[in-house]
Amino acid sequence: MLDQYSKSIANLIEEFEKFPSIGHKTAVRMAFHMLNSSKEEAERFSKVILDAKNNLKFCNICYNISDSDPCDICANVKRDKSTICVVEDVKDIIAMEKTHEYKGMYHVLQGAISPMNGIGPSDIRIKELLDRLKDNTVKEVILATNPNIEGEATAMYIAKLTSPLGIEITRIANGIPIGADIEFVDEVTLTKALEGRRKI
Amino acid sequence: MLDQYSKSIANLIEEFEKFPSIGHKTAVRMAFHMLNSSKEEAERFSKVILDAKNNLKFCNICYNISDSDPCDICANVKRDKSTICVVEDVKDIIAMEKTHEYKGMYHVLQGAISPMNGIGPSDIRIKELLDRLKDNTVKEVILATNPNIEGEATAMYIAKLTSPLGIEITRIANGIPIGADIEFVDEVTLTKALEGRRKI
Repeated sequence: MLDQYSKSIANLIEEFEKFPSIGHKTAVRMAFHMLNSSKEEAERFSKVILDAKNNLKFCNICYNISDSDPCDICANVKRDKSTICVVEDVKDIIAMEKTHEYKGMYHVLQGAISPMNGIGPSDIRIKELLDRLKDNTVKEVILATNPNIEGEATAMYIAKLTSPLGIEITRIANGIPIGADIEFVDEVTLTKALEGRRKI
Repeated sequence: MLDQYSKSIANLIEEFEKFPSIGHKTAVRMAFHMLNSSKEEAERFSKVILDAKNNLKFCNICYNISDSDPCDICANVKRDKSTICVVEDVKDIIAMEKTHEYKGMYHVLQGAISPMNGIGPSDIRIKELLDRLKDNTVKEVILATNPNIEGEATAMYIAKLTSPLGIEITRIANGIPIGADIEFVDEVTLTKALEGRRKI
């Protein structure tokens, strides 16, 4: 498919095609965009990639990805140290931060328990979470794992382990997303929404 | 929009967003894909970008982009030197090569005449095309500029300039694309298809 191109262009197209959701046509467009940009721009792009790879590390407290260790959130004295929101992935922290509502700490599990995929409790950062709960500063753990089989199992597992510690354990609510049409909401979500109904 | 991200990630997302047809969400996905790949992969990607920028040059005969000068097509002794296919852009060469039908040479104009955008005949490589026609090796010039106002004007202009040279000047056919439904073909295309009808 790439034999019409010069080697350097073919290599570039091939690299772009490795990205998720980038097909052949988009990769070609991106490669030619790169060729039409200035040499300085290409050098900056190249440098940004290496910088990201070299500078970014996992925060040793919450396992967020960050330029610094501890990460900006863990190092921020204004944040509420008494609450930890447990998520599966770094991207979930970003989604939570976009709400501008949550002011507590985070804990990234780096996965979810999934016996089907051979991922057990010891393969994700549950032990590290338990270590953080030992000194009694944490009063609430919010379980914000995904609302699917793996996420639910992980949440249940953590809830069971932490219940003897006398910490409040909560789970984020399931329900109908804002802007959705009840007519088209699946029955499981609707059941959860009914179960979670509140007085107004 | 990027303030939830560490600086290195934000920079990377910003770079990806500069590409055509890459929106914010795709840029985020690409950046995280990059972070999850190995350091070697990031280094190779970074190198391929610089290589493409450093190695690629314009062929001094046909103005194709290539790792070598003259380009692979101009340097290929098996290709028919008596025919030149004139295109607007390097990407048009690739489209033509994909047909595996055309075995002649190319000439990239690097644009089309467009008075609206201040692009005149001297701003594109028409002079260089005329220089190539001087030594009488070329017997046919196929005008494969785009079938729009600028492309047609450019084709007409070149046809007028080259007619005294006694070289055959042809224009690629307009008509109904293969697989299209006549019902939905626009009237201009249909008119062109009628005009260009051939005996079978």
